[in-house]
Amino acid sequence: MLNYFSSDFKLGILGGGQLGKMMLYETRKFDIQTHVIDPNPEAPSRIACNYFEQGDLMDYETVLKFGRNVDVLTFEIEGVNIEALKKLEEEGIKTYPSAATLEKIQNKGIQKNFYLNNKIPTAGFDIFSSKKALLDAIEEGKRKFPFVWKSTTGGYDGKGVAVIKSKADLKELSEAECIAEEMIPFKNELAVIVARNPSGEVKTYPVVEMEFHPTANQVEYVICPARIDPEVAKKARNLAKKVSEAFQHVGLLAVEMFQTKEDNILVNEVAPRPHNSGHYSIESSYTNQFEQHIRAVLDLPLGNTNSKVGGIMVNLVGDENHEGEVLYENIEKIMAINGVTPHIYGKKITRPFRKMGHVTIINEEIQEARKIAEEVKNLIKVISKK
Amino acid sequence: MLNYFSSDFKLGILGGGQLGKMMLYETRKFDIQTHVIDPNPEAPSRIACNYFEQGDLMDYETVLKFGRNVDVLTFEIEGVNIEALKKLEEEGIKTYPSAATLEKIQNKGIQKNFYLNNKIPTAGFDIFSSKKALLDAIEEGKRKFPFVWKSTTGGYDGKGVAVIKSKADLKELSEAECIAEEMIPFKNELAVIVARNPSGEVKTYPVVEMEFHPTANQVEYVICPARIDPEVAKKARNLAKKVSEAFQHVGLLAVEMFQTKEDNILVNEVAPRPHNSGHYSIESSYTNQFEQHIRAVLDLPLGNTNSKVGGIMVNLVGDENHEGEVLYENIEKIMAINGVTPHIYGKKITRPFRKMGHVTIINEEIQEARKIAEEVKNLIKVISKK
Repeated sequence: MLNYFSSDFKLGILGGGQLGKMMLYETRKFDIQTHVIDPNPEAPSRIACNYFEQGDLMDYETVLKFGRNVDVLTFEIEGVNIEALKKLEEEGIKTYPSAATLEKIQNKGIQKNFYLNNKIPTAGFDIFSSKKALLDAIEEGKRKFPFVWKSTTGGYDGKGVAVIKSKADLKELSEAECIAEEMIPFKNELAVIVARNPSGEVKTYPVVEMEFHPTANQVEYVICPARIDPEVAKKARNLAKKVSEAFQHVGLLAVEMFQTKEDNILVNEVAPRPHNSGHYSIESSYTNQFEQHIRAVLDLPLGNTNSKVGGIMVNLVGDENHEGEVLYENIEKIMAINGVTPHIYGKKITRPFRKMGHVTIINEEIQEARKIAEEVKNLIKVISKK
Repeated sequence: MLNYFSSDFKLGILGGGQLGKMMLYETRKFDIQTHVIDPNPEAPSRIACNYFEQGDLMDYETVLKFGRNVDVLTFEIEGVNIEALKKLEEEGIKTYPSAATLEKIQNKGIQKNFYLNNKIPTAGFDIFSSKKALLDAIEEGKRKFPFVWKSTTGGYDGKGVAVIKSKADLKELSEAECIAEEMIPFKNELAVIVARNPSGEVKTYPVVEMEFHPTANQVEYVICPARIDPEVAKKARNLAKKVSEAFQHVGLLAVEMFQTKEDNILVNEVAPRPHNSGHYSIESSYTNQFEQHIRAVLDLPLGNTNSKVGGIMVNLVGDENHEGEVLYENIEKIMAINGVTPHIYGKKITRPFRKMGHVTIINEEIQEARKIAEEVKNLIKVISKK
């Protein structure tokens, strides 16, 4: 085994956002040296790494040059130059997840075909090379309303996804390659994080549940454990494990799933990195997702994925009526509540709906945590200074 | 309330060792700006703060200049220039713990007299202005063997303390001012961490127990909760709270205590900062001691001090036969055990008995954690590279 701890070993991280920032808590805990690159010179991860560089993650030469100075390379965002990763792998730099795995995930059309080929249940879909091809199919009656439209590339935080119910909804769509997906009338939206290391050790985290706002189509709470039947939970964890193994994925893979009305589980999509749905783990789990990611990519033994206590995560997004220097109104009030921990990502400027942080609520009783989560959501506001 | 989060507010920390390093995980989590000063340019806290400076913490001008650039000043080590703290307080820089509190603690003679004056039970003692004064008292029969000798200043990690059973043991003692303390035949050595903020909110952590090696006089395990009668635990927490309030202490105060054979609780000594006996809290507690210290010194509401699960801490000290570039032998083996987390402080060079890190073992059952802790202790070795 390589000596990672207080040694000359260097882990490279492509991307310096909040996911990278939370990864760095763990590299500091283990005293593992890190290099970070991000296009934003004020990126949340610029502090707490050993070396920070400003650079374009989609630029071949930039990624290649950055990668050549580290021993193992990972990423906290999918939008990175895959050709550079391939070249680095050829040169002997370990890249986890691998370029081959990322290639199967980065394009949602390829990802969906991968599920078909690997007999992984997923919603029915068609791929269209352009908006025109989609419109033609509708015109010819081959594609009926309603459906879910997804851009095959570049989607993030709900961007690049739209529910299409009629011709009027088509107007705003981009010209890019896209998929049209069957709408699943699901009971629950679930997620399972899978950790897998190069030696093939695999562990799944408990199933989390995304609770939506009753009227607005927006996730309000990520709840662990999901309030579902244990048999359904077992099925979801097994399916997530199957997906990770099919991809030969190394690191963390967040598998988002639908629980249908018939209690079938369909894979929606995956993210090959620590994930918003795993933030609860910092306070709840024996091993949080960021430590687990570091363990996985360094081929260390995976940690216990069980929870110590129930956890609920609430995203802190910028208030829709505020833009400017951020102020976390009532943060001291939520901190006065038992088991409440705010995480502030370090973005100085708030904008409507910008992800600025999250709050974790832990409690031995998940129903009690759920009540407190609502109280927290009603109290805290991400606004700008007057 | 001041706006601490992603703002221009600056917290200054005197000392950049492992305690400071672990504090910085929490300031990063809250995105609070930090300035750190330490005499060692390679100090564990040099990374993850916003500004690092090399400097002498006992030098008046250095501390004054450093403190003038921050809004609130705290420390992670007692050995700092108190006159500079006083001057900064006069100038309106908030210093927590205060210079007045630190002054009562820094000198063990003053600390012991403080206990007497405040009716806080502690072992009987005499103060001697020099070694000669102590020797004279022994000669005149005023001081009998055995007793515990303590230097009034500069003691740390067991240095500056000796058990004196006969004249022969006196030889090695320094010339400094000292106290001679009654030897307490204790059942258990206990500790309670108290958090107190400037508004006067006080919370105590559960009692921890120091388990000693059966033959060597060395703490092997710090165990939370202590395996003691709940009535004794309650008494210890109440006493610790009384001590904190007597000192008007702000921040964390670690109160080390003896449980006598008659189940009386005597205060041994205090440390006005996060403490080795609270490291378990990172994994075990709803609010870990470092987050709690930050909350306290910023006058934020204090967090829940309860434990999610039982925790045991084992110090990682340098093997007595090794000196040089550090290697953590078998670290991957202990990481394969459920609930085991190593913390590596980031010191490149190991020396016999140097504190290099610690390992936390958590488990719902404290007896099970205790078994695993022994396994961990037998496996991991802090050695130097061949």
